[in-house]
Amino acid sequence: MPVASHISEAMSSSSFIRRMFEEGLMMKSRFGADNVYDFSIGNPDLEPPAKVARMLAELGTNPKPGQHGYMPNAGYPETRAAMAKKVSGEQGVEVSADRVVMGVGAAGAMNSVLKAVLSHGDEVLVSAPFFPEYAHYARNHGGNLRSIPSREDFSLDIASIEAAISSKTAALIINSPNNPTGKIYTSEDLAALGAALARAKSRTGRSVLLIADEPYREIVYDNRKVAPIFPVWADSVVVSSFAKNLSLPGERIGYVAVNPGCAWAQELTDAVIFCTRVIGYVNAPATFQRIVAECWDEKVDYSSYLKRRNLLTGILDEAGIEYAVPEGAFYLFCKVPERRATAGDSADDGAFCDQLKAHHILGVPGKGFGKPGWFRLAYCVSEKSITGSRDAFKNARIEW
Amino acid sequence: MPVASHISEAMSSSSFIRRMFEEGLMMKSRFGADNVYDFSIGNPDLEPPAKVARMLAELGTNPKPGQHGYMPNAGYPETRAAMAKKVSGEQGVEVSADRVVMGVGAAGAMNSVLKAVLSHGDEVLVSAPFFPEYAHYARNHGGNLRSIPSREDFSLDIASIEAAISSKTAALIINSPNNPTGKIYTSEDLAALGAALARAKSRTGRSVLLIADEPYREIVYDNRKVAPIFPVWADSVVVSSFAKNLSLPGERIGYVAVNPGCAWAQELTDAVIFCTRVIGYVNAPATFQRIVAECWDEKVDYSSYLKRRNLLTGILDEAGIEYAVPEGAFYLFCKVPERRATAGDSADDGAFCDQLKAHHILGVPGKGFGKPGWFRLAYCVSEKSITGSRDAFKNARIEW
Repeated sequence: MPVASHISEAMSSSSFIRRMFEEGLMMKSRFGADNVYDFSIGNPDLEPPAKVARMLAELGTNPKPGQHGYMPNAGYPETRAAMAKKVSGEQGVEVSADRVVMGVGAAGAMNSVLKAVLSHGDEVLVSAPFFPEYAHYARNHGGNLRSIPSREDFSLDIASIEAAISSKTAALIINSPNNPTGKIYTSEDLAALGAALARAKSRTGRSVLLIADEPYREIVYDNRKVAPIFPVWADSVVVSSFAKNLSLPGERIGYVAVNPGCAWAQELTDAVIFCTRVIGYVNAPATFQRIVAECWDEKVDYSSYLKRRNLLTGILDEAGIEYAVPEGAFYLFCKVPERRATAGDSADDGAFCDQLKAHHILGVPGKGFGKPGWFRLAYCVSEKSITGSRDAFKNARIEW
Repeated sequence: MPVASHISEAMSSSSFIRRMFEEGLMMKSRFGADNVYDFSIGNPDLEPPAKVARMLAELGTNPKPGQHGYMPNAGYPETRAAMAKKVSGEQGVEVSADRVVMGVGAAGAMNSVLKAVLSHGDEVLVSAPFFPEYAHYARNHGGNLRSIPSREDFSLDIASIEAAISSKTAALIINSPNNPTGKIYTSEDLAALGAALARAKSRTGRSVLLIADEPYREIVYDNRKVAPIFPVWADSVVVSSFAKNLSLPGERIGYVAVNPGCAWAQELTDAVIFCTRVIGYVNAPATFQRIVAECWDEKVDYSSYLKRRNLLTGILDEAGIEYAVPEGAFYLFCKVPERRATAGDSADDGAFCDQLKAHHILGVPGKGFGKPGWFRLAYCVSEKSITGSRDAFKNARIEW
């Protein structure tokens, strides 16, 4: 068996979101796209702003010499400068272009950061439920992801996070708005987190790098704001992408911004650039670096996500399925309902997702997010698909 | 010091090619682009075929819904099918689309393959001189790169490779046309290599995965052909990209093709797809997947590379610097000349590259390629830059 055994094992226990997505593609070709309600993956169905297409057309019509060539591993200077402006505005802290490293999506950016700071056996903390790929990303670089259950309302359990920090703890990942819950952490909680990290540093002698994964920052409801992290903890970075807010997930364009207040900001930036190179990303794709340099502040109307959220929550209310109302992003985290029609474990999210699938609804079990007994529905799909799912949800619930 | 110590160490001993490239950018802004002869990096100055620009314009002018969205991690089915057609022609073996995985450049593709097969402590063999990033790529996934010196003419030393194989050996990387020597391995040598791998497998009980890294396959001189590897060894993959042959290095678009004759081809393909996902590449960039699906067989006139090769070799002849005549790619691997003007170690390639730099010539020391006493010049630069370097080479040689 020449595939490495640790990879075979990881494969068999993983990839349930992707498996759903790819199963969904097969189901759609079998039953027709209109007859499959695919809530499996965060693949936004809003089109990118028109300026993206205009810039693509311009780059094709009037190509500049070398526009597809290598550039410094950190990215084009003008793209880094644009990201610095974006992050400065978001964080309320002046960030310079040389504190930004362009990445192959937020996933690439996150891996570059983790490789830069992880030594073998180090821990990366995360609040559960969490985006399951984080576990792979920590493991890629010799680390282990350790999840700390959130509070009931899916906010950070800061006391438990603080208690979990040891001299083995290299980093803490927070993700707000959160995938899968849609939770946005309050500025009060973030300030308390900063204080907890400071106390932990005094206790363990090691500073925890706070990594804010913010691909959903722009997608918020009811005029909420995502509070900045740079003011609350100096040893911190923001990782983000244009996958969700500009609907460009397939183009793999993201970035890291290092807190200028970090005492080792230059060293960390250099290490992230180095890791971007040696992991084999080399650089973020050239064309979309050029595009996001000019499109990052395009206004996108996310109100359709709110409309869809409300449409889907209405359908779940009718079906008798509970959920946490998302404050941002486009995921609905739902509780597996109590069984009535069939015997078995009520909290079995895998079985309930199978039940949904029998009704052509694709959702993702909560177990992989570190929260069994729940499941996730991604509602970045057409209204028609949401409306069409009404009876399927009802029937799936009735038969459960 | 919160950057991981193994990363700090790797940074200080590495990145000399990139450092040269980035130093070159600084020197150009200081002395003017015409006054710096930058042979540091394989950043092709030929523009991509016109069809690339036409397709970009078309994708911008008539965007299709979801064209920047997620697709299966392995890539678009039509792109995989196009690559399968390309590789089938090159390898003389029928390769189906489901044996192809699209990657973030050849570097991404190579990392996905290595992660799929490496267990901690495994060895990856390579013939020296070699592309130095391979050492990082092996190390990323718990492996160690072990280099076997080539024969004098830079062909594979097959007996030494065979002798070096142990039960720790997971893979052997070959790179033809070779970076940095421009060597193309003969079909006779590849057949002998296949036989050696078979004998080694009988001896150790473990099959070595042969990885052919072929980004320079199209760039060959004097009507040479790059012989296929699929017919000589079943446990093999081809890794390649469109960085060099279509001049798209900044776009990070490459692929892996698994030998259909491999007994575990499906398992290996699945593992490569999985690793593409979990390393955080997720997928090859969407737009350039669409472009290479239609542009992969565009005819590009590489005769200018031949002209430049001959121009540069003429200049080196005049300066009295020896080199190996490249059979393909666009690198000239040169011998550090004997010292006459100054005292010191004749074979010191770092010192000679410093000497060149004092004359505004950027070349890369051979040490990092596993071949001290030599240096590399990348001649994928303008003729003007090559012609302009004449006196600089002469003077650098005179002062040495």
